[in-house]
Amino acid sequence: MSAYAAPLKDMRFVLNELAGLAEVAKLSGYEDASPDTVDAILEEASKFASEVLDPINYSGDQEGSNWSNGEVRTPKGFREAYRQFCEGGWNALPFEAQWGGQGLPKLVSTPVQEMWKSSNMSFSLCPLLTQGAIEALLLRGSEPLKKAYVPKMVEGKWTGTMNLTEPQAGSDLSLVRTKAERSGDHYLISGQKIFITYGEHDLAENIVHLVLARTPDAPEGVKGISLFVVPKLIPNADGTPGKRNPARCASIEHKLGIHASPTAVMVYEKAVGYLVGEENRGLEYMFIMMNAARFAVGLEGVAIAERAFQRALAFAKERLQGRDLVDGRTVPIIRHPDVRRMLMLMKSQTEAMRALAYTTAASLDFAHKHADKEERKRQQAFAELMIPVVKGWSTETGIDVASLGVQVHGGMGFVEETGAAQYLRDARITTIYEGTTGIQAMDLVGRKIARDGGATAKAWLSALKSFDAELAKSGNPDIKSLRAQLAQGAQAVSDCVDFIVGTKDQRAAFSGAVPFLKLMGIAAGGWQMARAALISERKLSSKDGDLSFYEAKIATARFYGEHVLVQASGLRDTVVKGGPGVMGLSDEQFLAA
Amino acid sequence: MSAYAAPLKDMRFVLNELAGLAEVAKLSGYEDASPDTVDAILEEASKFASEVLDPINYSGDQEGSNWSNGEVRTPKGFREAYRQFCEGGWNALPFEAQWGGQGLPKLVSTPVQEMWKSSNMSFSLCPLLTQGAIEALLLRGSEPLKKAYVPKMVEGKWTGTMNLTEPQAGSDLSLVRTKAERSGDHYLISGQKIFITYGEHDLAENIVHLVLARTPDAPEGVKGISLFVVPKLIPNADGTPGKRNPARCASIEHKLGIHASPTAVMVYEKAVGYLVGEENRGLEYMFIMMNAARFAVGLEGVAIAERAFQRALAFAKERLQGRDLVDGRTVPIIRHPDVRRMLMLMKSQTEAMRALAYTTAASLDFAHKHADKEERKRQQAFAELMIPVVKGWSTETGIDVASLGVQVHGGMGFVEETGAAQYLRDARITTIYEGTTGIQAMDLVGRKIARDGGATAKAWLSALKSFDAELAKSGNPDIKSLRAQLAQGAQAVSDCVDFIVGTKDQRAAFSGAVPFLKLMGIAAGGWQMARAALISERKLSSKDGDLSFYEAKIATARFYGEHVLVQASGLRDTVVKGGPGVMGLSDEQFLAA
Repeated sequence: MSAYAAPLKDMRFVLNELAGLAEVAKLSGYEDASPDTVDAILEEASKFASEVLDPINYSGDQEGSNWSNGEVRTPKGFREAYRQFCEGGWNALPFEAQWGGQGLPKLVSTPVQEMWKSSNMSFSLCPLLTQGAIEALLLRGSEPLKKAYVPKMVEGKWTGTMNLTEPQAGSDLSLVRTKAERSGDHYLISGQKIFITYGEHDLAENIVHLVLARTPDAPEGVKGISLFVVPKLIPNADGTPGKRNPARCASIEHKLGIHASPTAVMVYEKAVGYLVGEENRGLEYMFIMMNAARFAVGLEGVAIAERAFQRALAFAKERLQGRDLVDGRTVPIIRHPDVRRMLMLMKSQTEAMRALAYTTAASLDFAHKHADKEERKRQQAFAELMIPVVKGWSTETGIDVASLGVQVHGGMGFVEETGAAQYLRDARITTIYEGTTGIQAMDLVGRKIARDGGATAKAWLSALKSFDAELAKSGNPDIKSLRAQLAQGAQAVSDCVDFIVGTKDQRAAFSGAVPFLKLMGIAAGGWQMARAALISERKLSSKDGDLSFYEAKIATARFYGEHVLVQASGLRDTVVKGGPGVMGLSDEQFLAA
Repeated sequence: MSAYAAPLKDMRFVLNELAGLAEVAKLSGYEDASPDTVDAILEEASKFASEVLDPINYSGDQEGSNWSNGEVRTPKGFREAYRQFCEGGWNALPFEAQWGGQGLPKLVSTPVQEMWKSSNMSFSLCPLLTQGAIEALLLRGSEPLKKAYVPKMVEGKWTGTMNLTEPQAGSDLSLVRTKAERSGDHYLISGQKIFITYGEHDLAENIVHLVLARTPDAPEGVKGISLFVVPKLIPNADGTPGKRNPARCASIEHKLGIHASPTAVMVYEKAVGYLVGEENRGLEYMFIMMNAARFAVGLEGVAIAERAFQRALAFAKERLQGRDLVDGRTVPIIRHPDVRRMLMLMKSQTEAMRALAYTTAASLDFAHKHADKEERKRQQAFAELMIPVVKGWSTETGIDVASLGVQVHGGMGFVEETGAAQYLRDARITTIYEGTTGIQAMDLVGRKIARDGGATAKAWLSALKSFDAELAKSGNPDIKSLRAQLAQGAQAVSDCVDFIVGTKDQRAAFSGAVPFLKLMGIAAGGWQMARAALISERKLSSKDGDLSFYEAKIATARFYGEHVLVQASGLRDTVVKGGPGVMGLSDEQFLAA
């Protein structure tokens, strides 16, 4: 099996040329993100991903995590890898210096996290969930809570979980039933939570569950849900882990993928919990964190696509089969047009998704730290517009790319030993958790477009129009072709935004929400590829840097236009005209047989 | 878990209204296929599928087939099911009466086989492979060979396999190395074969391997491959199974799906084999059978899509989650527009694929038995044009539909116990075996379009044009919408056919082969849906039959136009313009990192 190697060239290109790392590093507090420091971090992370995480990815999948009597044993090598991960300071990377972190911008932690996800998605979920829990605590936790939990979690000695789902409450959290009864300075939590990633495991000395529950007098629905910290071992006064809390792992799921990541059923039986923030505002806190979590899952789509591409590429270069169409010799299958088409689809979409994700990360940094308030607002609005796209489009495309990876392998792809199938199985969760693609699309259409009357989307479309004028100056035929496709894509988005803002039929708007999300992703990815092509053209004309890389970038961008962006008009028609057809049948006319 | 129920209403509609069962039943030799007989067969098959095969599908997947010391044990219940299958005469159904079969047209065995594939794809592969082996023997086997093997195989007492692939010879069979040395009245076969479906198992008393191998003096490449019968147990003079042949199952694969179907590595060590037909013509014989095998795998796409739809539908009707957009009540998720969109995508594409597959089956019957030679030729050409489409498009779409089935389930879809994930895993092989989608697409572009200068495709397009005139007469707004989409689709196909026939750049033609195949499928499916809509409109106006079914058919057809056919123009642009982009990078520019 081919080993993972971080795509450092493309990562650096996107960081420096598309996402504006130099500008981000000028923001107050991010001065440490100098080119040298960032380079060193990427190199080290790349080594860790290749040497420590990638080698236990397949074996971890095959062995899986195992439950026995309430305890969970992670696969061979995971404990040692996690120890090294924490020792190397990787767990602390995304956090502020005051909590033991490195205070780096999101733009820098993003490529690093891509590497963890590419090399071992199951492993990466543990620090990801810890990160989410830390953010919740930092956001609304009391000072004593923060002091008791955050430093240990930043260090990685304790890990975190998010307990939202219950059997009857998945996408619809208004149906949460877990109870929280006040008892002195704390609460007693009782109920069952399912789908709890790393809800139980053997990597750390303690697990900090963040649990959504209802107090007895809470209002019905989403406005009666509170957020609690429920530690597996209740900390002693000196901060060491103490008494076992009755927060029990009843079982773990038998899943399609991410076998090494234990997905727990948690049972709370009057477990000691501490309120985070105020009562009844738990869902609101969750929603504040949601952007970060959704972005992170979107990045999983990018990461799995990258890994699937690398494996398929290695196979296509080695596997001799069939004859060259022109000279008739037996050739590696990469020489066959259809295999090349598949590899180009994998490569071009992965690059487009990466560019959009990193650019969105930079926007979040600007939104957080820019000196100018209006600019912060503008950047925040842009990031919020793009996050459901990064989440929904990158994960849907990640599955497609992983499936192409299987296809490139032919029969070997269906055999688990090859490793290609694992990426498809692992990727399949990403369009579901942290909000399904349908939920992302409703967020995009309802909250991000309709709510501001399309203003943020139109601001982006007007930036696309100015950019088109820049593209028009290029005489490069590849860029000309791409420009035409991008203009069609932008027009399609514009038509859909007008439709969404203009329609009074909410069902019709939501009927086309997922096709619209895909269109947004395809168009935004095309925009990034066109930016990349234009920059590459300049680099080539000034003979600056790795010319073969820039030539490849332009050719890849052109391919993206003709094979991906080309779908835009069809998607527009589906969004604008296809609503009534979605609701055309009665429930009774949906017959199984 | 919801049980499988054969979609008898839609099957009957397609058989009678679209595929012309009444006309097929008039063909000489098919007189038994009267409406009553066919109904009875469908009812019985439906029962067998629901009561015997469906209940062991999930358990069979979980247990898998197990190899030990050269023997393979199929999962619990498979032996008994196979016994009942043979006793019920189902194994014999597709064969001529003289060999113990029922002599029914392909149009009748097609829905029956869809049921086996829907209810238990792993199980269905055993009779499918037996059928292929029987056909090879009937086609070119000597009389003694036929007499010794065919009746037992039709009865199901012995099963068959196809041994093509070797580690270095997958899509490219010119690389086959297995040797066959003459030894008296037989040959001694030596070599290794991989990916042999049901190469070893415990369902039957004997296994009949059809093996591609080379004689010592055979020419290089595809023109030096011969076909041999290699029985597991060499028949005695009285026909009973005798001495064990050194045809050994060395292991079975650990696969993504179809776990119950054992995929064997076979090792032949001077195993006794009997030549089928003449030396060096083995590949030619295989190619004659290929159409049947490819059609059968295409039908697997239809079948898995149907089953995935049924399961998702049952879940969507039961699962309460979220509030209705209009009245605000908690509703089953089928009421949410995006869930409905997914179900409609599943339903409409399944129906379109079924209609195309059955219509193609009818063409094969006409091609086989029609009194008029020209008509036979015309029907054969049409079927040959459509078979790579049925194979490639239905299997690619089958995977998409199975993946949508997982998505409808949300988090539950990722948990294996739900059963939705199995369909996705099982479906994933269908675009690979019997020729990958790329191979189908090259067959379509090269052999079926370019070779006759586009004549067969243009004949179909001209039939589409006449049909458009019929559609134009309808005042139904759903049919009007569909007509516009179908016209765009037909134009897109026409543009691509012109491009394929006109281009001198074979690489460019093959670069767009898969997008063209998808376009053909989408357009041909749209044609069938439009035919169905028009017939339904007539039935409605004459108030004839199940009016709700006909209303649903029209609404489903309209949805198909706006959500599926709508992709046609984009695919055309990819085919016609996208070729250069596919070959735009050098091998060296494909970098892993």
